[in-house]
Amino acid sequence: MAKQESLRADPCPMARTLYILGDRWSLLIIRDAFDGKRRFGDFQRSLGMAKNILAERLKLLVEEEILQMVPASDGSTYQEYALTRKGEELFPIIVAFRQWGESHMYRKGERHSVLVERATGKPVKRLELRAHDGSPLNHGDAFVKKLKA
Amino acid sequence: MAKQESLRADPCPMARTLYILGDRWSLLIIRDAFDGKRRFGDFQRSLGMAKNILAERLKLLVEEEILQMVPASDGSTYQEYALTRKGEELFPIIVAFRQWGESHMYRKGERHSVLVERATGKPVKRLELRAHDGSPLNHGDAFVKKLKA
Repeated sequence: MAKQESLRADPCPMARTLYILGDRWSLLIIRDAFDGKRRFGDFQRSLGMAKNILAERLKLLVEEEILQMVPASDGSTYQEYALTRKGEELFPIIVAFRQWGESHMYRKGERHSVLVERATGKPVKRLELRAHDGSPLNHGDAFVKKLKA
Repeated sequence: MAKQESLRADPCPMARTLYILGDRWSLLIIRDAFDGKRRFGDFQRSLGMAKNILAERLKLLVEEEILQMVPASDGSTYQEYALTRKGEELFPIIVAFRQWGESHMYRKGERHSVLVERATGKPVKRLELRAHDGSPLNHGDAFVKKLKA
């Protein structure tokens, strides 16, 4: 975990994010949270992962204020995990993974689930990088401007 | 790795993508490829990761046609790794991680590098989810429509 720890203070904003979200389980927990899952048992059944690893990942996500513990919505004594505002802002990451998978991880003709607008039932648009004036950008049209040392 | 293997055929497009990109090292290799790194030694120096793990990750990325081996651009006998078209389409994932990190992984006043447009030097816009007609969508405005069994 020394390597993971070192990402926390990396100069690159992406690397810092990967300190928290740099493994498939954490990303799938966030996906499930967006899909409405809130209880330890729901995540465990959905992901089929070892309980101790799930508990460890959830602990980090709560510590980093991506999830928060809230009283159960049904009034029972359970605690539930809810996305914070900061957690909700992870949505573009989840959508970007999904959209790339839709394009590239299926055989021709193989069907998959689709992210649709609640209001119309139509598929959402693909995420696109845009310039400050809203015009579309290719990856070659942008570069990382580093901090001066 | 049994767990990883099972993601390859998962019903969820995001989970399938995480079969390939579900660890911090693979994602950082892709980031470095977008930043122009092309040689084994460049990736190794940038990421400080064990050579055997780097070799394994690069092998999977080539097998999955995200990177391809090409002759060295300087005419030497080296082989270089270049993003394929499919690999270039990962850019929104990399940008989404970066933008979330910019917002949430820095202390107030702490500076970070910025993704800017090559043409103007201005920061790119934040990725936004949009409806089919281009209007902005909140995460609550979309849902995953599953395949009928």
